[in-house]
Amino acid sequence: MRSDFMNKERTAAFTDAVLAIIMTILVLDLKKPATVSWAGLYALHNNFFAYALSFAWLGLMWYSQHNAWQQIHKINNETIVASLVMLFFASFSPYTTSIMEDHFFNVTAQVLYGVVVLLVSLSNIWISHSLDVANHVSKRHLMYQAPDWVTYLDLVIKLVGMFLTVTVYPPAMSYAVLIDILLLCSMDYIGHHVKA
Amino acid sequence: MRSDFMNKERTAAFTDAVLAIIMTILVLDLKKPATVSWAGLYALHNNFFAYALSFAWLGLMWYSQHNAWQQIHKINNETIVASLVMLFFASFSPYTTSIMEDHFFNVTAQVLYGVVVLLVSLSNIWISHSLDVANHVSKRHLMYQAPDWVTYLDLVIKLVGMFLTVTVYPPAMSYAVLIDILLLCSMDYIGHHVKA
Amino acid sequence: MRSDFMNKERTAAFTDAVLAIIMTILVLDLKKPATVSWAGLYALHNNFFAYALSFAWLGLMWYSQHNAWQQIHKINNETIVASLVMLFFASFSPYTTSIMEDHFFNVTAQVLYGVVVLLVSLSNIWISHSLDVANHVSKRHLMYQAPDWVTYLDLVIKLVGMFLTVTVYPPAMSYAVLIDILLLCSMDYIGHHVKA
Amino acid sequence: MRSDFMNKERTAAFTDAVLAIIMTILVLDLKKPATVSWAGLYALHNNFFAYALSFAWLGLMWYSQHNAWQQIHKINNETIVASLVMLFFASFSPYTTSIMEDHFFNVTAQVLYGVVVLLVSLSNIWISHSLDVANHVSKRHLMYQAPDWVTYLDLVIKLVGMFLTVTVYPPAMSYAVLIDILLLCSMDYIGHHVKA
Repeated sequence: MRSDFMNKERTAAFTDAVLAIIMTILVLDLKKPATVSWAGLYALHNNFFAYALSFAWLGLMWYSQHNAWQQIHKINNETIVASLVMLFFASFSPYTTSIMEDHFFNVTAQVLYGVVVLLVSLSNIWISHSLDVANHVSKRHLMYQAPDWVTYLDLVIKLVGMFLTVTVYPPAMSYAVLIDILLLCSMDYIGHHVKA
Repeated sequence: MRSDFMNKERTAAFTDAVLAIIMTILVLDLKKPATVSWAGLYALHNNFFAYALSFAWLGLMWYSQHNAWQQIHKINNETIVASLVMLFFASFSPYTTSIMEDHFFNVTAQVLYGVVVLLVSLSNIWISHSLDVANHVSKRHLMYQAPDWVTYLDLVIKLVGMFLTVTVYPPAMSYAVLIDILLLCSMDYIGHHVKA
Repeated sequence: MRSDFMNKERTAAFTDAVLAIIMTILVLDLKKPATVSWAGLYALHNNFFAYALSFAWLGLMWYSQHNAWQQIHKINNETIVASLVMLFFASFSPYTTSIMEDHFFNVTAQVLYGVVVLLVSLSNIWISHSLDVANHVSKRHLMYQAPDWVTYLDLVIKLVGMFLTVTVYPPAMSYAVLIDILLLCSMDYIGHHVKA
Repeated sequence: MRSDFMNKERTAAFTDAVLAIIMTILVLDLKKPATVSWAGLYALHNNFFAYALSFAWLGLMWYSQHNAWQQIHKINNETIVASLVMLFFASFSPYTTSIMEDHFFNVTAQVLYGVVVLLVSLSNIWISHSLDVANHVSKRHLMYQAPDWVTYLDLVIKLVGMFLTVTVYPPAMSYAVLIDILLLCSMDYIGHHVKA
């Protein structure tokens, strides 16, 4: 049993380290203003938006994992494999964010960004499932402690965003991720105040 | 209770990791000398100054957090959110430092640098407040264990620096941060020697 | 004895940190598409393959180490030296991966990639040996808990890949690493299901 | 007392994290071959030498610290300040290594590299001193557990290297660091075998 605990700590530390590095190297691809003036900075407003979006999304993911892992005691081999798969997809964030920053109105750039976000979400569902199995949780949720309708809503928002990106308005995908982050934050806020 | 402790360790480790990465990737944007000679290196003296300033400022922040967190036992959800917000602002350091290095006498570059420094300071006040609430601290300070007049002085120095940057002398902001670092270091030094 | 435990944790944490950083900075060298379109992304398919290959290979190495170290109690000085040597060779991954991505059909690029992979494998055999000595393991394996024939097969696959790269088909080396990863994953999968 | 222990762990973890990042981002500045062939790689032999030298030097420093910190129980505020100063100087490694790699026969490049190495050595003497004070060690050494003559020899080798760089042969500094690393490794090897 003790060895399973260690397992958990080392995997959590590795996940945290990779997420911390991904979040921090995002800035290396943030474009410098052509002229250093407020106009020059304003010209990069989509770049700043994309940067903040990815940072917030990765931060929120770390926060959710942090809360979820705190309430479980054991992880199994599947958790580690699913975590590595999740980190693999998440490792593309600096790449897709950078492309999306520079091509904010390009359909491919936005879809690519959305595909990575979706694959990470699905990996988190896989991680969550493996944790439920490892800890013999009877009352299961799709993703960590979130009510299932929140997870479905989360996926629907992303898919609608992607649909609008392809059909009508390319930047829709990134705004969908923004709406999603705000939704999950307010869910969490309400959750804490209802509990208290 | 035990779960709150773990919370604290994992959040502290994550904060430390992000700060360590930010401090270390600063060097990736440090400009290489055009000609490798003492004259070539001297030509970059503002770059070296800006680099040292940001490293010292981030190091001091880690040090303050380190001391503050050691004396508390619990953190709450607000601490984690405030820490993520602080890390978000701090993550711009390599970006604003790099711009300031290359445009040391540019008002926008110095104000941008100062805005990030100020937002991180305000986030630290928020973190400190959340720690006081979580640990039912009766004798509260604005920022960690520092006497309130030090925190006010710290903010005033930064605001005066920014005012002088905008009105008279663009590099004032970075010198204000330098004065600030020296002030906080000497406060800490005096604090330890009075205690001893 | 206690001090040996600590030794183990700090060395494991350092190894994990370096591996996490190597895996995450791989993305910094991933080439951006010349035109942001599906054709532009498809033109980079060898780059994405090389990126995924290196990420999977490093992730698998972390996973193997993770499992192996969990079952031992002590490490000795040789383990630390062997770990530093392994990390030294592994630190070339972003370099050799980047060269191989951009010169997928170049013999030198593929051999260089393979040499790094082989040297890391040999270092892991060295680490494994030092762990066996430190823990007085009677039933020794060449590499961690893997049956010896798997380790020999692993080395043979890599050497055959390198031979084919030099003689017939340059990309053979990277496909050998792919076959190797799939082999080790299926071994691990079978191992867990036979045990269960 | 417990709080001092935690102090130690968090400072050790932060030091390790920064050293791990410095060692790993060295590769980002390693020059790619102009033509991907053995001749192209051979043309970079000084770059590979400088890379290996810095990696080995940083790895050895981590290893020495690791051994030294294991045998002490407490650290004080001076240890943390000295560690931050050491990390500040060490953070220049990727910068000075990169310049030295590309200008191997340039006096300024070699002296700059040597100055950083020397300043880190002096910082380590400072760290070592603070640990002796904090732990009331009666039998003090200049640097960790090394006999004082080794530390003096280490400093003399570096200073002679720098003298030769300035007067006769520019690359002398880097060869002095190489000799130094070999000396310290053999000292450590002898130390372990005499003890055993």
